[in-house]
Amino acid sequence: MFKKIGAVVLSASLVLSGLSLGTVDAKPDAVDRKGKKVENVIYMIPDGYSANYASNYRVYKGEDAVWDDHLKGMFTTYSADSDITDSAAAGTAMSTGEKTNNGVIGLDTEGNELETILEASQEDGKATGLVATSTITHATPAAFASHVDDRNNETEIARQMLANEVDVILGGGKNNFLPISQGGNQEELNLIEQAEEQGYEFVETRSQLLDNKQIAVKKGEKLLGLFADDALAPELHRAETEEPSLAEMTETAIDILKEDKGGFFLMVEGSQIDWAGHDNDAGWAMSEVEAFEAAVKEAIDFAKQDGETLVVVAADHDTGGMTTGSNGSLDLNADLLTNVTATGAYMADQLNEERSNVSEVLETHTGFELTEEEIQEIEEADNASLAINKVVSDRASIGWTSGNHTGADIPVYAYGPKAEKFVGFHDNTDLPKIIAEAMKLK
Amino acid sequence: MFKKIGAVVLSASLVLSGLSLGTVDAKPDAVDRKGKKVENVIYMIPDGYSANYASNYRVYKGEDAVWDDHLKGMFTTYSADSDITDSAAAGTAMSTGEKTNNGVIGLDTEGNELETILEASQEDGKATGLVATSTITHATPAAFASHVDDRNNETEIARQMLANEVDVILGGGKNNFLPISQGGNQEELNLIEQAEEQGYEFVETRSQLLDNKQIAVKKGEKLLGLFADDALAPELHRAETEEPSLAEMTETAIDILKEDKGGFFLMVEGSQIDWAGHDNDAGWAMSEVEAFEAAVKEAIDFAKQDGETLVVVAADHDTGGMTTGSNGSLDLNADLLTNVTATGAYMADQLNEERSNVSEVLETHTGFELTEEEIQEIEEADNASLAINKVVSDRASIGWTSGNHTGADIPVYAYGPKAEKFVGFHDNTDLPKIIAEAMKLK
Repeated sequence: MFKKIGAVVLSASLVLSGLSLGTVDAKPDAVDRKGKKVENVIYMIPDGYSANYASNYRVYKGEDAVWDDHLKGMFTTYSADSDITDSAAAGTAMSTGEKTNNGVIGLDTEGNELETILEASQEDGKATGLVATSTITHATPAAFASHVDDRNNETEIARQMLANEVDVILGGGKNNFLPISQGGNQEELNLIEQAEEQGYEFVETRSQLLDNKQIAVKKGEKLLGLFADDALAPELHRAETEEPSLAEMTETAIDILKEDKGGFFLMVEGSQIDWAGHDNDAGWAMSEVEAFEAAVKEAIDFAKQDGETLVVVAADHDTGGMTTGSNGSLDLNADLLTNVTATGAYMADQLNEERSNVSEVLETHTGFELTEEEIQEIEEADNASLAINKVVSDRASIGWTSGNHTGADIPVYAYGPKAEKFVGFHDNTDLPKIIAEAMKLK
Repeated sequence: MFKKIGAVVLSASLVLSGLSLGTVDAKPDAVDRKGKKVENVIYMIPDGYSANYASNYRVYKGEDAVWDDHLKGMFTTYSADSDITDSAAAGTAMSTGEKTNNGVIGLDTEGNELETILEASQEDGKATGLVATSTITHATPAAFASHVDDRNNETEIARQMLANEVDVILGGGKNNFLPISQGGNQEELNLIEQAEEQGYEFVETRSQLLDNKQIAVKKGEKLLGLFADDALAPELHRAETEEPSLAEMTETAIDILKEDKGGFFLMVEGSQIDWAGHDNDAGWAMSEVEAFEAAVKEAIDFAKQDGETLVVVAADHDTGGMTTGSNGSLDLNADLLTNVTATGAYMADQLNEERSNVSEVLETHTGFELTEEEIQEIEEADNASLAINKVVSDRASIGWTSGNHTGADIPVYAYGPKAEKFVGFHDNTDLPKIIAEAMKLK
């Protein structure tokens, strides 16, 4: 089915994009003259977040999110070879302005390298940064500073990120920077050592990050922070580790990058909203959105002070087919999820073999007293983790329809000079084009 | 849970609304001076439609919908007494700018009458019209021209619509205008006769509507068209009746109202998208969106010619928790639904008592050849209609999470002068305020 619609929608989108931009461009010059220039861009990507995450999160938080007021439009997300994109093709579209196939990073469908908005910013003399709570070499950050035909080739992605001299690299995935010990090539490069030789300061704990910020802030200092062997811990379990929050990494990245007189481009990903969505884990999802919001707040606070910083918030796709209500209920109870202190997977791990402690585990980590029926559902389920997540989502009136991504249109929010350029209906490939135009990149 | 968040969100929304309008207002006067004035407003409400209907419909149609390019923002929909609104409270918010309780039409939570945007337009000397495919006295159209504490009191709503002298009234629900024959008050008013005494032309078939259009177009002529005892037939079965399409009713209403030199206000509802959503009937839903789109096309075509007409497209709430993808699939197949020729309820009615003809009935009306498993699911289901709808939705990769409305944010589209006033994040109560401001109503 894809081939037919893909082509039609693509051409329609290009026309639309032209029209939308045209409309915005048609505004009197006065607006642009009044607006300051865009010196810095902070591109914030809540992986897997969609409009229904926004409406549920508003109930969870009890008030509007920091981005709600900055809503500018929505955009489509299909990839070159599928109605429903993965994060590699979506990241590539959002970093290069070109559609590619699912799984592919920074290459077009023919395998040609595509210049990314981060690379174009570097050429324009800007400092650059990448921040994520997944491995920093995961699909979304990878799509800004590497070019590989398989998103799983994370060691090659790490190598390219350093070859690209991205100034600030903060996230998880230390293993992808270290030689693979088992099975052979002992000569393989230690990328952390190489980074240090390239002039990177290397940190691997939250306290090192915060203590060394002032050192790293020295002009010309690059920073590599890898805080876990694999991904960082889920937000709900981060405090049990020595890993920083997304907001702390974002603040540090801004503090370092702002020292560059030529301006900066920073991409920040809230990586694990998507993973919570795949698990249909509503409590985890909302906690990750909250952590991402704290990072967006850092970015907007800086942009407010700075006056020449454009902050763009745009997810890559919806994950899970989340809905704001379920099962015929007229109540939204996402606020109950503020009491959830563990992921469904963690709670499932706490169950004993007979699952005779469902009630205690769930009450400890959700604050709910379960009904007999709910206890039985979890006791008898093939997959205890999914069953726990279903009970919790049903309590919250949050619905899910998939364990994978969906093709929902995604909202785009923008704050700062040229933010109005995002008004209207777009395709994901329009976003880096609008950013490049706002930054006046060649 | 509602009380707490309701208050918080309400105040946040008011602030936001102010800010959003402020931002738009901050544009240089040049834009407004260049834009023409708003003489006419066509307010189009696809009941139950949300962003996921938009993305699924784009796949169904194979290209962008006429409204996609006119996306301006999104808005919240909660009612005064529930996180999830019904159509009465939503209609009242969208017609009066005030929140009320579910079930209530045109009154505030204290029972006080609220002026509607239709009534304010009348006071400003404009002609007015209401068009729907439900009974014309159903919640959404009712909220524009009546004030009752129970949406089910459709006879009183009919009486008030005529007392309000709405110039063009087209839809279903003849029974609500006729005396109730059983049980008593034989003196009860025949509202159709009363309407004729008031100077309304009365029509009750599609051919009468189209034949009498020229007569009704005569200045000062009012038109009452009631084309079914209850609601009109679903779009999929309309051709079997003597009932007009929503586009035909819209075109006729515009043709009559445009003769008024003082301008006009017209509300058009695509009523049955919501009913398809309640049934989780994806084929019916898409066909109703298509019929609604044809009506929007009439409105935009008129607005393009006219140059002084603002067209606003905004649903009242999501119904069903529809998603764009389901069950882990990466394909969207909503285009398969173009072959569906009957509602799930109709197909269920065609099944024999043993349900031995599931395969034939489904193949006749969907074009799909069912698997053994799908046939068995329908044969064994408690509710054959829901089981049919689930099989069809699964084929299309359309997910559903509720048989009721949800609290999803809703997109707003606008075309014509002042359309840019809808840019950003709003509450449903903001919409009539923006329209009133655009029309310069007192």
